[in-house]
Amino acid sequence: MTVPAIQVYALAGMGEVAAGDALDELIAVALAGQGLDVEDGDILVVTSKIVSKAEGRSVRADDREEAITAETVRVVATRAHPGGVTRIVENRLGIVQAAAGVDASNTPSGTVLLLPVDPDASARQLATALRAHLGVRLGILVSDTLGRAWREGQTDAAIGSAGVLVVDDLRGGVDTFGQRLEVTQMAVADEIAAAADLVKGKASGMPVALVRGLSQFVVDSLETPARALTRTGPTDMFRLGTDEALAEGRATGYAEGFAAGRLAGLAERP
Amino acid sequence: MTVPAIQVYALAGMGEVAAGDALDELIAVALAGQGLDVEDGDILVVTSKIVSKAEGRSVRADDREEAITAETVRVVATRAHPGGVTRIVENRLGIVQAAAGVDASNTPSGTVLLLPVDPDASARQLATALRAHLGVRLGILVSDTLGRAWREGQTDAAIGSAGVLVVDDLRGGVDTFGQRLEVTQMAVADEIAAAADLVKGKASGMPVALVRGLSQFVVDSLETPARALTRTGPTDMFRLGTDEALAEGRATGYAEGFAAGRLAGLAERP
Repeated sequence: MTVPAIQVYALAGMGEVAAGDALDELIAVALAGQGLDVEDGDILVVTSKIVSKAEGRSVRADDREEAITAETVRVVATRAHPGGVTRIVENRLGIVQAAAGVDASNTPSGTVLLLPVDPDASARQLATALRAHLGVRLGILVSDTLGRAWREGQTDAAIGSAGVLVVDDLRGGVDTFGQRLEVTQMAVADEIAAAADLVKGKASGMPVALVRGLSQFVVDSLETPARALTRTGPTDMFRLGTDEALAEGRATGYAEGFAAGRLAGLAERP
Repeated sequence: MTVPAIQVYALAGMGEVAAGDALDELIAVALAGQGLDVEDGDILVVTSKIVSKAEGRSVRADDREEAITAETVRVVATRAHPGGVTRIVENRLGIVQAAAGVDASNTPSGTVLLLPVDPDASARQLATALRAHLGVRLGILVSDTLGRAWREGQTDAAIGSAGVLVVDDLRGGVDTFGQRLEVTQMAVADEIAAAADLVKGKASGMPVALVRGLSQFVVDSLETPARALTRTGPTDMFRLGTDEALAEGRATGYAEGFAAGRLAGLAERP
Protein backbone atom coordinates (compact mmCIF):
# COMPACT_ATOMS: atom_id res chain seq x y z
CA MET A 1 0.00 0.00 0.00
CA THR A 2 1.18 3.49 -0.81
CA VAL A 3 1.12 5.74 2.22
CA PRO A 4 -0.86 8.91 1.49
CA ALA A 5 1.10 12.14 1.58
CA ILE A 6 0.35 15.66 0.48
CA GLN A 7 2.49 18.69 -0.25
CA VAL A 8 1.34 22.29 -0.03
CA TYR A 9 3.39 25.04 -1.67
CA ALA A 10 2.86 28.79 -1.43
CA LEU A 11 3.13 30.60 -4.73
CA ALA A 12 5.45 33.59 -4.53
CA GLY A 13 5.85 36.51 -6.89
CA MET A 14 2.20 37.15 -7.74
CA GLY A 15 2.51 40.87 -7.14
CA GLU A 16 -0.50 43.10 -6.58
CA VAL A 17 -3.68 42.21 -8.49
CA ALA A 18 -5.70 44.98 -10.12
CA ALA A 19 -9.17 45.16 -11.65
CA GLY A 20 -9.20 43.58 -15.09
CA ASP A 21 -6.09 41.46 -14.54
CA ALA A 22 -6.16 37.98 -16.05
CA LEU A 23 -5.60 35.79 -12.98
CA ASP A 24 -4.86 32.68 -15.04
CA GLU A 25 -1.92 34.44 -16.70
CA LEU A 26 -0.60 35.88 -13.43
CA ILE A 27 -0.77 32.45 -11.82
CA ALA A 28 0.83 30.68 -14.78
CA VAL A 29 3.70 33.17 -14.79
CA ALA A 30 4.20 32.85 -11.01
CA LEU A 31 4.18 29.04 -11.24
CA ALA A 32 6.80 29.13 -13.99
CA GLY A 33 8.88 31.69 -12.12
CA GLN A 34 8.97 29.44 -9.09
CA GLY A 35 9.74 26.36 -11.17
CA LEU A 36 6.55 24.67 -9.98
CA ASP A 37 5.37 22.24 -12.67
CA VAL A 38 1.69 21.65 -12.14
CA GLU A 39 0.82 17.96 -12.32
CA ASP A 40 -2.36 16.10 -13.12
CA GLY A 41 -4.51 16.07 -9.98
CA ASP A 42 -2.95 19.17 -8.41
CA ILE A 43 -5.25 21.70 -6.76
CA LEU A 44 -4.66 25.46 -6.76
CA VAL A 45 -6.26 27.28 -3.85
CA VAL A 46 -6.82 30.94 -4.65
CA THR A 47 -7.73 33.51 -1.99
CA SER A 48 -11.09 35.11 -2.82
CA LYS A 49 -9.48 38.50 -2.23
CA ILE A 50 -7.46 38.40 -5.47
CA VAL A 51 -10.46 37.08 -7.39
CA SER A 52 -12.45 40.05 -6.10
CA LYS A 53 -9.65 42.44 -7.00
CA ALA A 54 -9.36 41.07 -10.54
CA GLU A 55 -13.14 41.35 -10.87
CA GLY A 56 -13.08 44.97 -9.71
CA ARG A 57 -15.23 44.30 -6.62
CA SER A 58 -13.73 47.24 -4.70
CA VAL A 59 -15.98 49.88 -3.13
CA ARG A 60 -15.25 52.99 -1.08
CA ALA A 61 -14.64 52.27 2.59
CA ASP A 62 -17.12 55.01 3.53
CA ASP A 63 -19.82 52.82 2.03
CA ARG A 64 -18.83 49.69 3.98
CA GLU A 65 -21.98 49.40 6.12
CA GLU A 66 -24.14 50.06 3.07
CA ALA A 67 -22.18 47.44 1.13
CA ILE A 68 -22.74 44.87 3.88
CA THR A 69 -26.47 45.61 3.76
CA ALA A 70 -26.49 45.19 -0.01
CA GLU A 71 -24.69 41.84 0.21
CA THR A 72 -27.05 40.57 2.92
CA VAL A 73 -30.09 38.42 2.23
CA ARG A 74 -30.84 37.58 5.87
CA VAL A 75 -29.60 38.80 9.25
CA VAL A 76 -28.74 35.92 11.57
CA ALA A 77 -27.45 37.84 14.59
CA THR A 78 -26.04 41.21 15.54
CA ARG A 79 -23.86 42.16 18.46
CA ALA A 80 -22.80 45.62 19.58
CA HIS A 81 -19.18 46.14 20.63
CA PRO A 82 -17.06 49.22 21.34
CA GLY A 83 -16.13 49.61 17.65
CA GLY A 84 -19.65 49.33 16.29
CA VAL A 85 -22.02 46.46 15.51
CA THR A 86 -21.00 43.07 14.16
CA ARG A 87 -23.55 41.66 11.78
CA ILE A 88 -23.56 37.93 11.15
CA VAL A 89 -25.62 37.42 8.01
CA GLU A 90 -26.40 35.06 5.20
CA ASN A 91 -24.99 36.70 2.09
CA ARG A 92 -26.21 36.30 -1.47
CA LEU A 93 -23.89 33.29 -1.88
CA GLY A 94 -25.67 31.43 0.94
CA ILE A 95 -22.65 31.82 3.21
CA VAL A 96 -23.26 32.79 6.83
CA GLN A 97 -20.41 35.01 7.99
CA ALA A 98 -19.58 38.26 9.72
CA ALA A 99 -20.01 41.45 7.66
CA ALA A 100 -21.28 39.44 4.66
CA GLY A 101 -17.66 38.81 3.71
CA VAL A 102 -16.99 42.49 3.00
CA ASP A 103 -13.30 42.83 3.72
CA ALA A 104 -11.15 45.78 4.75
CA SER A 105 -7.75 44.08 5.14
CA ASN A 106 -5.16 43.78 2.39
CA THR A 107 -6.99 46.34 0.30
CA PRO A 108 -5.76 49.81 -0.70
CA SER A 109 -6.51 52.48 1.88
CA GLY A 110 -10.00 53.93 1.61
CA THR A 111 -11.48 50.87 -0.06
CA VAL A 112 -13.11 47.61 0.97
CA LEU A 113 -13.68 44.49 -1.11
CA LEU A 114 -16.89 42.60 -1.79
CA LEU A 115 -16.77 38.85 -2.38
CA PRO A 116 -16.61 37.69 -6.00
CA VAL A 117 -19.96 37.84 -7.82
CA ASP A 118 -20.01 34.03 -8.23
CA PRO A 119 -16.92 32.27 -6.81
CA ASP A 120 -17.91 28.94 -8.39
CA ALA A 121 -18.06 30.61 -11.80
CA SER A 122 -14.74 32.35 -11.12
CA ALA A 123 -13.23 28.96 -10.25
CA ARG A 124 -14.61 27.44 -13.45
CA GLN A 125 -13.14 30.23 -15.59
CA LEU A 126 -9.75 29.88 -13.92
CA ALA A 127 -9.78 26.09 -14.20
CA THR A 128 -10.76 26.18 -17.87
CA ALA A 129 -8.01 28.65 -18.72
CA LEU A 130 -5.30 26.97 -16.65
CA ARG A 131 -6.19 23.45 -17.80
CA ALA A 132 -5.86 24.63 -21.40
CA HIS A 133 -2.69 26.58 -20.71
CA LEU A 134 -0.89 23.93 -18.66
CA GLY A 135 -2.33 20.82 -20.29
CA VAL A 136 -3.14 19.05 -17.01
CA ARG A 137 -6.30 18.17 -15.12
CA LEU A 138 -6.00 20.54 -12.17
CA GLY A 139 -8.66 21.69 -9.75
CA ILE A 140 -9.36 25.19 -8.46
CA LEU A 141 -10.67 26.21 -5.06
CA VAL A 142 -11.50 29.80 -4.12
CA SER A 143 -11.05 30.30 -0.36
CA ASP A 144 -12.26 32.76 2.23
CA THR A 145 -11.76 33.17 5.97
CA LEU A 146 -14.77 32.28 8.13
CA GLY A 147 -15.51 32.48 11.83
CA ARG A 148 -17.21 29.53 13.49
CA ALA A 149 -19.93 29.03 16.06
CA TRP A 150 -18.61 27.67 19.38
CA ARG A 151 -14.94 27.95 18.44
CA GLU A 152 -12.49 30.80 18.75
CA GLY A 153 -10.60 32.08 15.75
CA GLN A 154 -11.19 31.69 12.06
CA THR A 155 -10.30 29.06 9.48
CA ASP A 156 -10.21 29.22 5.72
CA ALA A 157 -12.99 27.45 3.82
CA ALA A 158 -13.86 26.88 0.17
CA ILE A 159 -16.40 29.29 -1.32
CA GLY A 160 -15.71 28.38 -4.95
CA SER A 161 -14.74 25.10 -6.60
CA ALA A 162 -14.17 23.78 -10.10
CA GLY A 163 -12.92 20.28 -10.75
CA VAL A 164 -12.60 19.45 -7.05
CA LEU A 165 -15.13 17.26 -5.24
CA VAL A 166 -16.12 19.32 -2.24
CA VAL A 167 -17.45 16.48 -0.07
CA ASP A 168 -16.04 13.01 0.52
CA ASP A 169 -19.23 11.10 1.16
CA LEU A 170 -18.30 8.11 3.28
CA ARG A 171 -21.88 7.14 4.10
CA GLY A 172 -22.45 3.56 3.12
CA GLY A 173 -18.75 2.80 3.32
CA VAL A 174 -17.38 0.53 6.01
CA ASP A 175 -14.88 1.22 8.75
CA THR A 176 -11.95 -1.02 9.67
CA PHE A 177 -14.34 -3.21 11.70
CA GLY A 178 -16.66 -3.71 8.73
CA GLN A 179 -19.34 -1.49 10.25
CA ARG A 180 -21.16 1.01 8.08
CA LEU A 181 -20.09 4.65 8.36
CA GLU A 182 -23.47 6.24 8.85
CA VAL A 183 -23.04 9.95 9.07
CA THR A 184 -19.61 10.88 7.84
CA GLN A 185 -19.45 13.36 4.98
CA MET A 186 -16.10 15.07 5.15
CA ALA A 187 -16.03 18.62 3.77
CA VAL A 188 -12.69 18.01 2.04
CA ALA A 189 -12.77 21.28 0.08
CA ASP A 190 -12.86 23.17 3.39
CA GLU A 191 -10.05 21.00 4.75
CA ILE A 192 -7.95 21.68 1.62
CA ALA A 193 -8.62 25.43 1.93
CA ALA A 194 -7.52 25.24 5.58
CA ALA A 195 -4.33 23.39 4.64
CA ALA A 196 -3.56 25.98 1.96
CA ASP A 197 -4.05 28.84 4.43
CA LEU A 198 -1.23 27.44 6.55
CA VAL A 199 1.26 28.36 3.84
CA LYS A 200 -0.49 31.35 2.28
CA GLY A 201 -0.83 33.32 5.48
CA LYS A 202 -2.68 36.59 5.79
CA ALA A 203 0.00 39.26 5.57
CA SER A 204 2.51 37.52 3.35
CA GLY A 205 1.43 38.60 -0.11
CA MET A 206 1.13 34.96 -1.21
CA PRO A 207 -2.53 34.51 -2.14
CA VAL A 208 -2.24 31.18 -3.98
CA ALA A 209 -1.17 27.71 -2.82
CA LEU A 210 -0.63 24.52 -4.76
CA VAL A 211 -1.82 21.31 -3.08
CA ARG A 212 -0.42 18.04 -4.39
CA GLY A 213 -1.40 14.49 -3.46
CA LEU A 214 -5.20 14.69 -3.46
CA SER A 215 -5.89 13.68 -7.05
CA GLN A 216 -8.67 11.39 -5.83
CA PHE A 217 -10.76 14.52 -5.36
CA VAL A 218 -9.94 16.08 -8.75
CA VAL A 219 -12.39 15.31 -11.57
CA ASP A 220 -12.91 16.16 -15.24
CA SER A 221 -16.13 18.05 -14.60
CA LEU A 222 -15.87 21.66 -13.51
CA GLU A 223 -19.40 21.53 -12.13
CA THR A 224 -18.42 20.85 -8.52
CA PRO A 225 -19.81 23.94 -6.78
CA ALA A 226 -18.68 24.92 -3.30
CA ARG A 227 -22.20 26.29 -2.96
CA ALA A 228 -23.13 22.69 -2.02
CA LEU A 229 -21.26 23.26 1.26
CA THR A 230 -23.56 26.03 2.43
CA ARG A 231 -26.40 24.95 4.71
CA THR A 232 -29.33 27.26 5.10
CA GLY A 233 -33.07 26.68 5.19
CA PRO A 234 -34.99 23.92 6.99
CA THR A 235 -31.90 21.90 7.99
CA ASP A 236 -30.21 24.93 9.57
CA MET A 237 -30.69 24.62 13.33
CA PHE A 238 -29.01 28.00 13.93
CA ARG A 239 -30.84 30.30 11.52
CA LEU A 240 -31.15 32.95 14.25
CA GLY A 241 -28.80 33.93 17.07
CA THR A 242 -30.00 32.86 20.49
CA ASP A 243 -30.73 36.40 21.73
CA GLU A 244 -32.61 37.19 18.52
CA ALA A 245 -34.68 33.98 18.74
CA LEU A 246 -35.43 34.51 22.44
CA ALA A 247 -36.67 38.04 21.66
CA GLU A 248 -38.76 36.90 18.72
CA GLY A 249 -40.28 34.05 20.73
CA ARG A 250 -40.98 36.34 23.65
CA ALA A 251 -42.83 38.83 21.45
CA THR A 252 -44.94 36.09 19.92
CA GLY A 253 -45.63 34.54 23.31
CA TYR A 254 -46.48 37.87 24.90
CA ALA A 255 -49.15 38.60 22.28
CA GLU A 256 -50.65 35.12 22.68
CA GLY A 257 -50.48 35.29 26.45
CA PHE A 258 -52.02 38.76 26.57
CA ALA A 259 -55.03 37.65 24.50
CA ALA A 260 -55.58 34.57 26.67
CA GLY A 261 -55.03 36.53 29.89
CA ARG A 262 -57.52 39.21 28.88
CA LEU A 263 -60.19 36.58 28.29
CA ALA A 264 -59.34 35.05 31.64
CA GLY A 265 -59.62 38.46 33.32
CA LEU A 266 -62.96 39.15 31.69
CA ALA A 267 -64.20 35.72 32.77
CA GLU A 268 -63.22 36.46 36.35
CA ARG A 269 -65.74 39.27 36.51
CA PRO A 270 -67.86 38.74 39.54
CA MET B 1 12.66 34.78 0.75
CA THR B 2 12.00 31.11 1.33
CA VAL B 3 8.64 30.08 -0.03
CA PRO B 4 6.57 28.33 2.65
CA ALA B 5 5.76 24.70 2.01
CA ILE B 6 4.36 21.94 4.16
CA GLN B 7 4.31 18.16 3.87
CA VAL B 8 1.74 15.89 5.46
CA TYR B 9 2.45 12.16 5.76
CA ALA B 10 0.09 9.45 6.93
CA LEU B 11 1.61 6.98 9.35
CA ALA B 12 1.01 3.38 8.33
CA GLY B 13 1.37 0.20 10.31
CA MET B 14 -0.07 1.35 13.61
CA GLY B 15 -2.28 -1.69 13.93
CA GLU B 16 -5.24 -1.82 16.29
CA VAL B 17 -4.89 0.07 19.59
CA ALA B 18 -6.12 -1.54 22.81
CA ALA B 19 -6.73 -0.27 26.33
CA GLY B 20 -3.47 0.16 28.18
CA ASP B 21 -1.31 0.41 25.07
CA ALA B 22 1.54 2.92 25.22
CA LEU B 23 0.75 5.19 22.27
CA ASP B 24 4.18 6.82 22.30
CA GLU B 25 5.82 3.44 21.75
CA LEU B 26 3.35 2.40 19.03
CA ILE B 27 3.90 5.71 17.21
CA ALA B 28 7.69 5.58 17.55
CA VAL B 29 7.75 2.03 16.14
CA ALA B 30 5.45 2.99 13.25
CA LEU B 31 7.57 6.06 12.44
CA ALA B 32 10.72 3.94 12.38
CA GLY B 33 9.02 1.24 10.32
CA GLN B 34 8.09 3.81 7.72
CA GLY B 35 11.53 5.40 7.74
CA LEU B 36 10.06 8.73 8.83
CA ASP B 37 12.69 10.66 10.79
CA VAL B 38 10.88 13.17 12.94
CA GLU B 39 12.52 16.59 12.77
CA ASP B 40 12.56 19.57 15.07
CA GLY B 41 9.33 21.49 14.54
CA ASP B 42 7.33 18.56 13.20
CA ILE B 43 3.76 18.09 14.40
CA LEU B 44 2.09 14.72 14.93
CA VAL B 45 -1.68 14.79 14.63
CA VAL B 46 -3.27 11.88 16.49
CA THR B 47 -6.93 10.93 16.06
CA SER B 48 -8.73 11.15 19.39
CA LYS B 49 -10.15 7.71 18.72
CA ILE B 50 -6.85 5.92 19.37
CA VAL B 51 -6.19 8.07 22.42
CA SER B 52 -9.59 6.99 23.75
CA LYS B 53 -8.86 3.37 22.94
CA ALA B 54 -5.49 3.47 24.71
CA GLU B 55 -7.19 5.10 27.69
CA GLY B 56 -9.85 2.39 27.81
CA ARG B 57 -12.72 4.83 27.16
CA SER B 58 -14.90 2.12 25.58
CA VAL B 59 -18.45 1.53 26.82
CA ARG B 60 -21.19 -0.89 25.75
CA ALA B 61 -23.14 0.33 22.72
CA ASP B 62 -26.41 -0.39 24.57
CA ASP B 63 -25.48 2.42 26.92
CA ARG B 64 -24.78 4.97 24.16
CA GLU B 65 -27.64 7.35 24.94
CA GLU B 66 -26.82 7.16 28.62
CA ALA B 67 -23.15 7.81 27.85
CA ILE B 68 -24.06 10.89 25.80
CA THR B 69 -26.10 12.19 28.74
CA ALA B 70 -23.21 11.58 31.11
CA GLU B 71 -20.77 13.46 28.84
CA THR B 72 -23.17 16.40 28.43
CA VAL B 73 -22.98 19.56 30.52
CA ARG B 74 -25.53 21.54 28.48
CA VAL B 75 -27.97 20.74 25.68
CA VAL B 76 -27.73 23.24 22.82
CA ALA B 77 -30.27 21.76 20.41
CA THR B 78 -32.03 18.52 19.61
CA ARG B 79 -33.57 17.35 16.40
CA ALA B 80 -35.66 14.25 15.77
CA HIS B 81 -34.95 12.22 12.64
CA PRO B 82 -36.06 8.78 11.42
CA GLY B 83 -33.21 7.04 13.27
CA GLY B 84 -33.75 8.77 16.60
CA VAL B 85 -32.82 12.12 18.08
CA THR B 86 -29.61 14.04 17.38
CA ARG B 87 -28.40 15.92 20.42
CA ILE B 88 -26.02 18.82 19.91
CA VAL B 89 -24.49 19.50 23.29
CA GLU B 90 -21.63 21.13 25.10
CA ASN B 91 -19.59 18.29 26.53
CA ARG B 92 -17.42 18.33 29.64
CA LEU B 93 -14.48 19.50 27.48
CA GLY B 94 -16.36 22.65 26.44
CA ILE B 95 -16.76 21.34 22.90
CA VAL B 96 -20.14 21.79 21.22
CA GLN B 97 -20.77 18.78 18.98
CA ALA B 98 -23.32 16.13 18.09
CA ALA B 99 -23.70 13.25 20.54
CA ALA B 100 -21.10 14.79 22.90
CA GLY B 101 -18.40 13.18 20.75
CA VAL B 102 -19.49 9.65 21.67
CA ASP B 103 -18.45 7.64 18.65
CA ALA B 104 -19.69 4.37 17.20
CA SER B 105 -17.51 4.10 14.09
CA ASN B 106 -14.16 2.32 13.95
CA THR B 107 -14.87 0.65 17.27
CA PRO B 108 -15.36 -3.05 17.93
CA SER B 109 -18.94 -4.21 17.45
CA GLY B 110 -21.13 -3.69 20.49
CA THR B 111 -19.04 -0.83 21.84
CA VAL B 112 -18.85 2.95 21.53
CA LEU B 113 -16.03 5.27 22.51
CA LEU B 114 -16.07 8.29 24.76
CA LEU B 115 -13.66 11.14 24.11
CA PRO B 116 -10.39 11.12 26.06
CA VAL B 117 -10.75 12.26 29.68
CA ASP B 118 -8.51 15.29 29.02
CA PRO B 119 -7.15 15.50 25.45
CA ASP B 120 -4.77 18.33 26.35
CA ALA B 121 -3.26 16.18 29.10
CA SER B 122 -3.08 13.21 26.72
CA ALA B 123 -1.24 15.42 24.23
CA ARG B 124 1.19 16.56 26.92
CA GLN B 125 1.95 12.98 27.97
CA LEU B 126 2.54 11.93 24.37
CA ALA B 127 4.68 14.97 23.61
CA THR B 128 6.80 14.48 26.73
CA ALA B 129 7.42 10.82 25.94
CA LEU B 130 8.09 11.31 22.22
CA ARG B 131 10.32 14.36 22.71
CA ALA B 132 12.42 12.31 25.12
CA HIS B 133 12.41 9.24 22.89
CA LEU B 134 13.17 11.01 19.60
CA GLY B 135 15.26 13.88 20.90
CA VAL B 136 13.46 16.57 18.92
CA ARG B 137 11.08 19.41 19.72
CA LEU B 138 7.89 18.05 18.17
CA GLY B 139 4.31 19.11 18.77
CA ILE B 140 1.25 16.94 19.34
CA LEU B 141 -2.34 17.65 18.31
CA VAL B 142 -5.26 15.37 19.18
CA SER B 143 -7.99 15.67 16.56
CA ASP B 144 -11.68 14.95 16.34
CA THR B 145 -14.34 15.29 13.65
CA LEU B 146 -16.82 18.12 14.17
CA GLY B 147 -19.91 19.28 12.33
CA ARG B 148 -20.37 22.99 11.71
CA ALA B 149 -23.22 25.44 11.87
CA TRP B 150 -24.28 26.71 8.42
CA ARG B 151 -22.03 24.36 6.48
CA GLU B 152 -22.57 20.84 5.23
CA GLY B 153 -20.21 18.06 6.16
CA GLN B 154 -17.65 17.75 8.89
CA THR B 155 -14.03 18.78 9.28
CA ASP B 156 -11.37 17.66 11.71
CA ALA B 157 -10.41 20.07 14.48
CA ALA B 158 -7.91 20.07 17.35
CA ILE B 159 -9.29 19.03 20.74
CA GLY B 160 -5.90 18.50 22.38
CA SER B 161 -2.57 20.27 21.94
CA ALA B 162 0.89 20.18 23.48
CA GLY B 163 3.77 22.22 22.13
CA VAL B 164 1.68 23.66 19.27
CA LEU B 165 0.35 27.23 19.36
CA VAL B 166 -3.34 26.81 18.63
CA VAL B 167 -4.04 30.36 17.45
CA ASP B 168 -1.99 32.61 15.19
CA ASP B 169 -2.96 35.99 16.55
CA LEU B 170 -2.49 38.50 13.75
CA ARG B 171 -4.23 41.36 15.54
CA GLY B 172 -1.92 44.32 15.71
CA GLY B 173 0.06 43.09 12.73
CA VAL B 174 -0.06 44.88 9.43
CA ASP B 175 -1.21 43.72 6.02
CA THR B 176 0.67 44.27 2.77
CA PHE B 177 -0.76 47.81 2.60
CA GLY B 178 0.54 48.66 6.06
CA GLN B 179 -2.95 48.63 7.55
CA ARG B 180 -3.57 46.98 10.90
CA LEU B 181 -5.13 43.53 10.86
CA GLU B 182 -7.90 44.10 13.37
CA VAL B 183 -9.80 40.89 13.84
CA THR B 184 -7.80 38.05 12.41
CA GLN B 185 -6.96 35.22 14.77
CA MET B 186 -6.40 32.12 12.71
CA ALA B 187 -7.20 28.84 14.46
CA VAL B 188 -4.10 27.17 13.05
CA ALA B 189 -4.44 24.05 15.21
CA ASP B 190 -7.83 23.39 13.60
CA GLU B 191 -6.33 24.03 10.15
CA ILE B 192 -3.48 21.62 10.88
CA ALA B 193 -5.95 18.97 12.09
CA ALA B 194 -7.95 19.48 8.88
CA ALA B 195 -4.82 19.10 6.74
CA ALA B 196 -3.91 15.92 8.60
CA ASP B 197 -7.38 14.45 8.05
CA LEU B 198 -6.84 14.66 4.30
CA VAL B 199 -4.20 11.93 4.52
CA LYS B 200 -5.48 10.01 7.54
CA GLY B 201 -8.93 9.39 6.19
CA LYS B 202 -11.72 7.74 8.11
CA ALA B 203 -11.68 4.12 7.04
CA SER B 204 -8.02 3.66 6.24
CA GLY B 205 -6.61 2.51 9.56
CA MET B 206 -4.10 5.36 9.59
CA PRO B 207 -4.91 7.39 12.68
CA VAL B 208 -1.72 9.49 12.82
CA ALA B 209 -0.25 12.05 10.43
CA LEU B 210 3.05 13.89 10.52
CA VAL B 211 2.93 17.55 9.45
CA ARG B 212 6.23 19.19 8.49
CA GLY B 213 6.94 22.81 7.68
CA LEU B 214 5.07 24.63 10.44
CA SER B 215 7.84 24.90 13.03
CA GLN B 216 6.86 28.53 13.64
CA PHE B 217 3.91 27.17 15.62
CA VAL B 218 5.91 24.60 17.63
CA VAL B 219 7.17 25.81 21.01
CA ASP B 220 9.10 24.44 24.00
CA SER B 221 6.15 24.74 26.36
CA LEU B 222 3.64 21.93 26.39
CA GLU B 223 1.05 24.23 27.97
CA THR B 224 -0.72 25.17 24.74
CA PRO B 225 -4.21 23.81 25.38
CA ALA B 226 -6.69 23.30 22.55
CA ARG B 227 -9.27 24.08 25.21
CA ALA B 228 -8.51 27.74 24.35
CA LEU B 229 -10.28 27.13 21.02
CA THR B 230 -13.64 26.37 22.60
CA ARG B 231 -16.05 29.28 22.85
CA THR B 232 -18.90 29.00 25.29
CA GLY B 233 -20.42 31.42 27.77
CA PRO B 234 -21.19 35.12 27.26
CA THR B 235 -19.41 35.44 23.90
CA ASP B 236 -21.31 32.48 22.42
CA MET B 237 -24.05 33.94 20.23
CA PHE B 238 -25.45 30.46 19.50
CA ARG B 239 -25.76 28.93 22.93
CA LEU B 240 -29.23 27.59 22.04
CA GLY B 241 -30.63 26.28 18.76
CA THR B 242 -33.11 28.64 17.12
CA ASP B 243 -36.15 26.42 17.73
CA GLU B 244 -35.16 25.94 21.37
CA ALA B 245 -34.65 29.68 21.91
CA LEU B 246 -37.92 30.54 20.14
CA ALA B 247 -39.76 28.07 22.42
CA GLU B 248 -38.05 29.38 25.56
CA GLY B 249 -38.77 32.97 24.61
CA ARG B 250 -42.36 32.16 23.78
CA ALA B 251 -42.96 30.50 27.14
CA THR B 252 -41.46 33.48 28.98
CA GLY B 253 -43.45 35.92 26.86
CA TYR B 254 -46.69 33.98 27.27
CA ALA B 255 -46.46 34.10 31.06
CA GLU B 256 -45.72 37.82 31.02
CA GLY B 257 -48.44 38.51 28.47
CA PHE B 258 -51.01 36.42 30.33
CA ALA B 259 -50.44 38.35 33.56
CA ALA B 260 -50.71 41.70 31.78
CA GLY B 261 -53.73 40.58 29.75
CA ARG B 262 -55.57 39.32 32.82
CA LEU B 263 -55.15 42.70 34.49
CA ALA B 264 -56.38 44.38 31.33
CA GLY B 265 -59.41 42.09 31.22
CA LEU B 266 -60.24 42.76 34.85
CA ALA B 267 -59.91 46.50 34.20
CA GLU B 268 -62.35 46.26 31.35
CA ARG B 269 -65.10 45.27 33.73
CA PRO B 270 -68.05 47.50 33.02
